[in-house]
Amino acid sequence: MQRRSFLKKATLGAAAGGATLASPVFAQESPTINWRLASSFPRSADAIYSGGENLAKYVGEATGGKFNIRAFPAGEIVPALQVLDGVQNGTVECGHSASYYYFGKDPALSFDAAVPFGLNTRQMNAWMRHGDGLKLLRELFKTYNIVNFPCGYTGTQMGGWFRNEIKSVDDLKGLKFRMSAFAGAVLSRLGVVPQQIAGGDIYPALEKGTIDGAEWIGPYDDEKLGFNKVAKYYYFPGWWEGTLQVSLYVNQEAYNKLPKHYQAVLEQASAAATNDMIAKYDAENPAALRRLIANGAQLRAFPKSVMDACYAESVKVYAEMSAKSPMFKKLYDSMVAFRDNEIPWFRVADGSFDGYMGTIGRNGGK
Amino acid sequence: MQRRSFLKKATLGAAAGGATLASPVFAQESPTINWRLASSFPRSADAIYSGGENLAKYVGEATGGKFNIRAFPAGEIVPALQVLDGVQNGTVECGHSASYYYFGKDPALSFDAAVPFGLNTRQMNAWMRHGDGLKLLRELFKTYNIVNFPCGYTGTQMGGWFRNEIKSVDDLKGLKFRMSAFAGAVLSRLGVVPQQIAGGDIYPALEKGTIDGAEWIGPYDDEKLGFNKVAKYYYFPGWWEGTLQVSLYVNQEAYNKLPKHYQAVLEQASAAATNDMIAKYDAENPAALRRLIANGAQLRAFPKSVMDACYAESVKVYAEMSAKSPMFKKLYDSMVAFRDNEIPWFRVADGSFDGYMGTIGRNGGK
Repeated sequence: MQRRSFLKKATLGAAAGGATLASPVFAQESPTINWRLASSFPRSADAIYSGGENLAKYVGEATGGKFNIRAFPAGEIVPALQVLDGVQNGTVECGHSASYYYFGKDPALSFDAAVPFGLNTRQMNAWMRHGDGLKLLRELFKTYNIVNFPCGYTGTQMGGWFRNEIKSVDDLKGLKFRMSAFAGAVLSRLGVVPQQIAGGDIYPALEKGTIDGAEWIGPYDDEKLGFNKVAKYYYFPGWWEGTLQVSLYVNQEAYNKLPKHYQAVLEQASAAATNDMIAKYDAENPAALRRLIANGAQLRAFPKSVMDACYAESVKVYAEMSAKSPMFKKLYDSMVAFRDNEIPWFRVADGSFDGYMGTIGRNGGK
Repeated sequence: MQRRSFLKKATLGAAAGGATLASPVFAQESPTINWRLASSFPRSADAIYSGGENLAKYVGEATGGKFNIRAFPAGEIVPALQVLDGVQNGTVECGHSASYYYFGKDPALSFDAAVPFGLNTRQMNAWMRHGDGLKLLRELFKTYNIVNFPCGYTGTQMGGWFRNEIKSVDDLKGLKFRMSAFAGAVLSRLGVVPQQIAGGDIYPALEKGTIDGAEWIGPYDDEKLGFNKVAKYYYFPGWWEGTLQVSLYVNQEAYNKLPKHYQAVLEQASAAATNDMIAKYDAENPAALRRLIANGAQLRAFPKSVMDACYAESVKVYAEMSAKSPMFKKLYDSMVAFRDNEIPWFRVADGSFDGYMGTIGRNGGK
C-alpha cells in the first residue's frame, strides 16, 4: 500500500503532462538513410506486394521520414526471382521475397516460406517467434550475407486450377502442372510434369493447353489473373503451402550500419506489415471465392487418396533431402517436431470452435 | 529498359553506402517522454501480461529510449478492472486491458475483446484491420477519451474446469460457474449462476466447493493456477472467446501530444506485441495441455446439444442488446456480417488443410 501511494504521488506530474515536461534532446543520432527494396511480386498482386510497400511506409512513419525505403515491384531493378542475389551482393539494401523461389540454390531455404504438409499461419508465426524457426533460418541466411525478417502471410493457399477433375492418383499421371519447385519435386514422383512459369504467363499457357493446370495463390489473386475462364476445376487445399511466409531480406552490411533504433523499427515494421497482409487476405478472399464460383469455378477438394499419396511421397523426399544436407535436416526436424506438437492442441480449442462455427450458417445463422 | 538502367546508375552510390552518405540531422524533434502503463493482468500470467510489457519495450527500442513506457502489473497503480477508467481520467497515459471487463458500463465495448460465438484470431485481426472493426471501436472508445490499438491475442480459449461432467443442457441448471459477464448473461438464461471472481480467488473457491466450475484462459495459464487439482473435467471450446483480443488504451490528450512518428511507433509496436503474444500462446499451450492430461485432467468437448442451446440463447441476447443500443447494433451487425462471410472460406483452404494435418499423426506422422 505504501509503495503504491508513493508511486501515485511521485508520478502524478508526469502523468498529467509527460510530453510537455520533456525537452527535445539530440543525443541520439537519427541519420537520414535511403534504401531501395526489390520485391519479387508485381504491384498488381497488391496483397502480397503490400508486405514490402507497407514495410517501407511504416519505417518512414516511425522515423519521421529519416529512414526512407523505396519499394520497387518485381523486375524494375532486380528480376523477380533474383531478389536473394540482389540483396546478397548489395545491389539493393533489402528485398521482399519468398525463399522457396531459391529452392534450386538450397532446398533448406524453403523452410522460411512454405514446405509440403508444413505449418499453418499461426503455427509458422509461433515456430518463428517462440520456437527455433527464426533462429535456425537466421543461421542459414547468414551464409547469404542476409538478415531475414518474417514480413507477411497469405494463409493456406488453394491447390490450383485444373482443366479436368482429379478423382484419383492416376489422374496425376502426365499432368503438366505449373507449381512451385518443392511441391513439384514431390508430385513428379506421382507422374506430374511440373512447370516453372512466371505468374503473368500462366493464363496464356492454360488457354493454349500448353499446361493442364496451375496454382498461384488463392481466390483474391487468382481472380485477377482470370484462371476460371480457362480451367474450371478449383482444388483445395494447397498442401504445399499451409501458409506462405514472405520475408524481408536485409543485406548484412547495410543492416550493421543502421543505428540500433532503426534496426528495432525495421523489425517492428515487419511485424506490422505481417499482420496487415494476412488481414488483407482474410478480408478479401471470401468475396473473391464467391465471385469465382458465381462465374463458373467448380470448387473441389483433393480426394483423400490423392492427399495420402502426396503426403507419403513428401515424407520420402524429406528423408532424401535430410540425408544430403545437415542444415535441411536440422530445419526439417525442428519444424516437424513443432508441427506434431501443435496439431493435437489446434484440434481442441481453435479447431472445435471453427468446426462449430462452420455449422451455424446452416442453422440459419444470425 | 531505359528507365531501369537510369535507376540503376542513379542509385548505385546510395545502394553501396546509404548510411555513410547521410549526415545526422536534427530537424525532427524526438522529445523524451515518460509514460506509465497500467495492466489488467498479473505478471504471473506472463503470456497475456507480455502484451503491455513488450509494447513498452518495443517503443523504447524504436526511439532509442526517448519514448519510455513503464508497465505496471494489475493492481500496482490501478486496480485490474479499472484500467479503462484510469486511462480515461489520465491517472495513467495508457493501459493494457480487455474491454469485456467493462461490460457493465457498456456491453458494446466487448466487441473489442470477445463476444459469444464471435470471431477467431485471424478473423478478428482481419475485421479490425481490413473490415470496419477498428473504425467502429475507435468511435466508441473516443467517448471514453481513449484511442485503442489491438495489442495481443490468446487464440480460442478453453471452456473451463468443471467438477462434474456436462452431458446435457440440464446439467447447466443451478451450476455456479465463474466466467466473463457477457457469456454469463447468456448462460444464466439456461440456469447457470454466473460468478465474478478475480483470477487469484478461483482456486480456493473451487477447492471449497463454493463454485462448481470456472473458466480462465487456456492450458498454459490454467496450469499455473492448478485447476486440474480441484476440478477434473476440462471442457472445450470456450465459445465465448473464439479469440481474446487485448488492447492498448491510450489517453486521448496524451496521444495528441505525441509527435507523429511516436504515434506511428506506438501503432507498430502494438502490432509487434500482438504477433508475439499469439506466438507465445501457440508455442506454450500444446505442452501445457499434455501435462494437464498427464496429471489427471479429463478433456471433454461440450456436447452439440449444449453448444446449440448456448448459441440459440446468444442470438436472443444479441437481439435484445441491439434493440437497446444503436452502437451495440452497429458493432454486432458489422461483426456478424464479417463473420458469416469468413466462415465458408475458412472451411475451404485453412480448414481442409488443418483437417488433413489432424489425420497424419494417426498415420504414423513423420
